[in-house]
Amino acid sequence: MIIPVILCGGAGTRLWPASRDDVPKPFLPLVGGKSTFDLTLGRLGSADVFGPVLIVANSAHVKMIRAAMARAGVEGAVLAEPDGRDTAGAIAAASAFLSDVDERAVMLVLPADHLIRDAQGFADTVAAALPVAEKGSIVVFGVRPDRPATTFGYIQPGEELEGHVARKVRSFVEKPERLRAGELIEQGCLWNAGMFLAQAGTVLGEIQAHAPAVMSGISAAVHDATSEEDLVRLSSEPFLSIPRVSFDVAVMEKTGKAAVVEARFDWSDLGTWDAVWSASERDGNGNALSGDVTVLDARNNVVSSDGQRIGVFGVENLAVVACNGGVLVAPRARADELKDLVSAIQARAEQPEADFALRYRPWGSYRAIDIGEGYQTRRVVVNPGERLFLQQHSRREEQWTVVAGTGEATVGMTMDSLRTVPLAPGSSVHIPLGAIHRLANTGDEPLAVIEVQVGEYIGEDDIIRHEEAAGR
Amino acid sequence: MIIPVILCGGAGTRLWPASRDDVPKPFLPLVGGKSTFDLTLGRLGSADVFGPVLIVANSAHVKMIRAAMARAGVEGAVLAEPDGRDTAGAIAAASAFLSDVDERAVMLVLPADHLIRDAQGFADTVAAALPVAEKGSIVVFGVRPDRPATTFGYIQPGEELEGHVARKVRSFVEKPERLRAGELIEQGCLWNAGMFLAQAGTVLGEIQAHAPAVMSGISAAVHDATSEEDLVRLSSEPFLSIPRVSFDVAVMEKTGKAAVVEARFDWSDLGTWDAVWSASERDGNGNALSGDVTVLDARNNVVSSDGQRIGVFGVENLAVVACNGGVLVAPRARADELKDLVSAIQARAEQPEADFALRYRPWGSYRAIDIGEGYQTRRVVVNPGERLFLQQHSRREEQWTVVAGTGEATVGMTMDSLRTVPLAPGSSVHIPLGAIHRLANTGDEPLAVIEVQVGEYIGEDDIIRHEEAAGR
Repeated sequence: MIIPVILCGGAGTRLWPASRDDVPKPFLPLVGGKSTFDLTLGRLGSADVFGPVLIVANSAHVKMIRAAMARAGVEGAVLAEPDGRDTAGAIAAASAFLSDVDERAVMLVLPADHLIRDAQGFADTVAAALPVAEKGSIVVFGVRPDRPATTFGYIQPGEELEGHVARKVRSFVEKPERLRAGELIEQGCLWNAGMFLAQAGTVLGEIQAHAPAVMSGISAAVHDATSEEDLVRLSSEPFLSIPRVSFDVAVMEKTGKAAVVEARFDWSDLGTWDAVWSASERDGNGNALSGDVTVLDARNNVVSSDGQRIGVFGVENLAVVACNGGVLVAPRARADELKDLVSAIQARAEQPEADFALRYRPWGSYRAIDIGEGYQTRRVVVNPGERLFLQQHSRREEQWTVVAGTGEATVGMTMDSLRTVPLAPGSSVHIPLGAIHRLANTGDEPLAVIEVQVGEYIGEDDIIRHEEAAGR
Repeated sequence: MIIPVILCGGAGTRLWPASRDDVPKPFLPLVGGKSTFDLTLGRLGSADVFGPVLIVANSAHVKMIRAAMARAGVEGAVLAEPDGRDTAGAIAAASAFLSDVDERAVMLVLPADHLIRDAQGFADTVAAALPVAEKGSIVVFGVRPDRPATTFGYIQPGEELEGHVARKVRSFVEKPERLRAGELIEQGCLWNAGMFLAQAGTVLGEIQAHAPAVMSGISAAVHDATSEEDLVRLSSEPFLSIPRVSFDVAVMEKTGKAAVVEARFDWSDLGTWDAVWSASERDGNGNALSGDVTVLDARNNVVSSDGQRIGVFGVENLAVVACNGGVLVAPRARADELKDLVSAIQARAEQPEADFALRYRPWGSYRAIDIGEGYQTRRVVVNPGERLFLQQHSRREEQWTVVAGTGEATVGMTMDSLRTVPLAPGSSVHIPLGAIHRLANTGDEPLAVIEVQVGEYIGEDDIIRHEEAAGR
């Protein structure tokens, strides 16, 4: 059985305004209303060649991940990183964790933000590569190019290995210019899909050999990890001491054990709005539409809304995206230049970038819905069984009104005088200036609360926390 | 002295999503952050040829109008229509009202939603036309065309009148096709700017002669009008009985008294986003930008936001507008086809069109800021000295939290048990299911309240009103 190792990093800065720091790309419903993380789990759950999964993710996203695993009926564990250290750190942690159980366990490393529709072709390709991995190779998967793309790395295959399924990797080529990309394709090079299959011990040995600085930090981070059920929290200090480097640069470009198997499945990295358009279902005029969108006399556009009403007419080949309080209009074909626009927006912006963004927290999420001088209104959603820190604000009072779910509010002016009030839709609780308070969901449904903050100063830094909630 | 008569109708459906039923075009900050109504008042206030103004408007907009008059330092009266009956009704009401005082009073009829920058040229043109109007003509103003526009009516001038300032009108031509527009321009025709100058008695006489159905309803509506200070409310029943017809069709195309004076000033009807672009200041790349907007490598676009962060790159000649919860993307040059898109949006929409629009009411305004199953959150703003109806809801409870201003909440389960609670920022009041309640602003600043509605049914029709507030 193969252990899928799913990497949940990837900010997706070329997908502004959908992707923000707090809503990473794997969790965005980019294609058909589903996230690539959900689709990845679904693909793995449907083939019996795969065992339980190991997910490497930021600890802030553990709740989202568990919810998705429950939806997909997929079992496994989560390795929680205190902060991202690129793919070398994530893959080293996973291989060290698996090696502790069985050095010969075969791991399939998958980015969580790629789209593969053909689950059977995917499972067949991986199964074909399995004997090669079991003989000690690190098998990467190469996608046959259909255009001279400049946004992917390329793999140059070398001599055939026994069994004719795989070839040695002669070299990895970084994202090329367009002309060079054409040459590489003529030479038979393949796109590097960023996945690989190998025994955990093999991977760990190559990290030890080529990236010893990563290895030493990871050994300590895994050794000192804390576990609760299926959640393993890597130890912060050693993990954060390792260099930020990609696994490709740290290991793959140096190892002599790389082999390549050609992918017999469709593949998209969904890296740009153009890629989202390519991967989406389209109407008769070639438009990929998502959300409350009306198009008229328009062709080959990708138009997406997370709530606003978009009307588009008379345009072609554009990306029009409205979400998280931002609106993008740009040609699809230039979607890879989006970083320049995002930099210009950030340079220009007087207000912080993500005022109205949906923000995920370990206990649920919140979103500002109205901001004015001396006040702010938020919709706060607490997940079942979760509660916030006991906290205090010195410059604002708050009013909570429950609009869905059940729970408890704990309020008092001192720790000795805390009182607990039950909450149900329509309940409202006043938190005076300086009061200690906490919101908790005691029910089975999300608890949604409209929070009105009123005061001379409204800011995230006006907070005193009075406890560490369990397991944070 | 000339009495400017300002017509405040005009929905501006070709300016979606900025214009909505509740935010008519004259009150939108379309150019340089100012509304055309403000700019119109400013133009009149700066020239001493003009006397006090008479404004014809829907009664829902009286408060906005008074605030704008105070800002501009312009004196005058408001004729309030219970509902719009096109320009014939509005002009007939104004001429009947003025004739009661002085039949020879000269009125200058102006749409409130046009843009004229050259206040001196405007005043000079009107002053030159004054002797012609005083001799009994209805003087329209013709704009020299600079392109074969298909969105304006044309005026065909005839023989010169004595003094050489004006010519008789040979005919009015409705919005032509492009080829016909070119022919009209070659024949020396002018655009009809929708303004005219005439004695009140002359106008009333021509309405009597050519539109007797309008005349009889208007006579009764003015005769039975109710007045408070400078506000005259036309009597509803007779006013609403008159036909909906434009003054051009009802009178101007039939009268023998039409004369035309060529405008010696710039003019735009701001009827489309293309016209807004033409009339706006533009950056070095020809982009007209308004609000939180970043453009990169883009030319000749009009980009406008009322709060969202818009990023645009790599496009030309587009209108990109985000406001009132809607987003438009379309070529500027096809902006006059916007009605088709708006129809398609309305046909497609499952939700009502203007859920998140700012809605003006006689007492202030409100805007939905968050809508979910079983609840809705609104920001309600009550103007100084105003109060809402005493009211009751049978299927929802409400929670008010004050975020700005001062006032009073009146609440009780019966009319005999009403209690009044003072309100200040941070105050919160619960309105139980079925309670009678009222919100009032007793201060000098706007009272802003976050209202959370929670219940099995949230709808505007779940309301019982217990009184008519004074003068509604």
